[in-house]
Amino acid sequence: MSQRCVDRLQAAVINQGPLCVGLDPVFERLPEELKGRAESRRDKAKACGGFARLVVDAVADIVGVVKIQVACFERFGATGYQELEETVEHARRAGMVIISDCKRGDIGSTMQAYVDYHLSALGADAMTLSPYMGRDVFSPLEPLLAQGKGAFFLVRTSNPGAAEVQSAAGDAEPLYRRTAALVTAWQRDFPPDESDYLPAGAVVGATAPQELAELRRNFPSLFFLVPGYGFQGGTAQDVSPAFDSNGGGAVVNASRSVLYAFRLEDGGEQDDWQQAVRQKAQASQAELGAAAHDGH
Amino acid sequence: MSQRCVDRLQAAVINQGPLCVGLDPVFERLPEELKGRAESRRDKAKACGGFARLVVDAVADIVGVVKIQVACFERFGATGYQELEETVEHARRAGMVIISDCKRGDIGSTMQAYVDYHLSALGADAMTLSPYMGRDVFSPLEPLLAQGKGAFFLVRTSNPGAAEVQSAAGDAEPLYRRTAALVTAWQRDFPPDESDYLPAGAVVGATAPQELAELRRNFPSLFFLVPGYGFQGGTAQDVSPAFDSNGGGAVVNASRSVLYAFRLEDGGEQDDWQQAVRQKAQASQAELGAAAHDGH
Repeated sequence: MSQRCVDRLQAAVINQGPLCVGLDPVFERLPEELKGRAESRRDKAKACGGFARLVVDAVADIVGVVKIQVACFERFGATGYQELEETVEHARRAGMVIISDCKRGDIGSTMQAYVDYHLSALGADAMTLSPYMGRDVFSPLEPLLAQGKGAFFLVRTSNPGAAEVQSAAGDAEPLYRRTAALVTAWQRDFPPDESDYLPAGAVVGATAPQELAELRRNFPSLFFLVPGYGFQGGTAQDVSPAFDSNGGGAVVNASRSVLYAFRLEDGGEQDDWQQAVRQKAQASQAELGAAAHDGH
Repeated sequence: MSQRCVDRLQAAVINQGPLCVGLDPVFERLPEELKGRAESRRDKAKACGGFARLVVDAVADIVGVVKIQVACFERFGATGYQELEETVEHARRAGMVIISDCKRGDIGSTMQAYVDYHLSALGADAMTLSPYMGRDVFSPLEPLLAQGKGAFFLVRTSNPGAAEVQSAAGDAEPLYRRTAALVTAWQRDFPPDESDYLPAGAVVGATAPQELAELRRNFPSLFFLVPGYGFQGGTAQDVSPAFDSNGGGAVVNASRSVLYAFRLEDGGEQDDWQQAVRQKAQASQAELGAAAHDGH
């Protein structure tokens, strides 16, 4: 059995830092040199894929983890999926841990098809999942977790509208807490190992720091994927409760703040866009690394 | 503005009957003549797409609605999406209402990408959505609903594991009821029209008939997409509470029981598989049509 995804994540956080770069390419925001004369959907899909791969090149030696936003490729249909597949292969060759951010959630043979695609055919190391349909989302995943793959269930997300579903007042227990308990319970057949983290973890946003701290305290065996840092308003201080006493246990995703770091306030661009992306990743890595050891 | 999706659905139910045929092609289950000598993923994807289109041909004059299971195409990556696109185009030309069953749920520009793909580029009339992330899933959809498109949010699904998340005891209100109320509230800017149904409806399974009846009673403006009939164990009697007093207000999906109706108990096949599919669709349509008028 190859090294477990969650152990590779933990090693990346400890050795390189907690930053996960989110590959969310949006054609209109790309550097001018990549937009070029693209007009067809096909050209735009290729420009988005090319950008994602150049971002990988710019950060691969300083960042251990990428999260690929599947929607940014799916929007282009078949051509988009070709670009997605090339991008995953590119990041794999660069040695990065790859999270397919697809938020799939279905049951039985349908979920099996999603799991087979994202974790086997596409070759991501982990995928994100929506828990609304319950344990039947988890079951088809189980054999792949046993083979070393990883997953992250949505628990408490970083968006403004999350609270009305996930933290509704009046519930005996808010949904986010109940979901975290279910994700833990579903994995009772996975024996704890040296790292103490279960193969499937939780998505917990940086924009709800109190709930983040509470979840870290009550669910010490769940590894966290933390969105909402940077562009969405979460600060390094906000994410600091996500980490364990070794400064591990969580990766923090930054997408727009890193990807489009070359964009100047007047709408222009820095001369070397890859260098700007790299510098922003380095700065974020340093800031998050300090936050991971805050208060420990 | 073209006719609203939900009005086309209502017309299909009243004029042709409540059956929605679920296109969930799985290579191993296809008729031998279509499996042929397919060995590569590409060949298998093409066989699955071809099967789905021949099912459309077999039922298009007796069934008004198809639900396409995106996972069955996504499992084949880029080639699968080509087949998905051809299948949607084929069903569109046959005049059917097309529901893209993708259960997407994300936020902001990510959700926008999913909505743009499924309802515009792909050209489905409606898509299924997961409500876990709250109102931010709905917002990017709103302009397309205003243009006549449709959607179905997961509310109470038909799978065995649904209850532990959606109907947990101890909550002030079970999640399924809270979700149905949110989906209704999010649409407050859509004026009621002659059909009284809001553009975005709810997925409510046939396997929880009491909750189905309760939701029909309390949410008269939500059109229902009802899975779980047939193979999953829901009977025509179980789905009868889904309908309004005109025998409308819901479509009932059948996938495996119709698609693989040509399969004999000994594993063999009927000679004319399309004829077997058509006959099963006709029988289901008749049974569901009777159930829709039961007790009214």
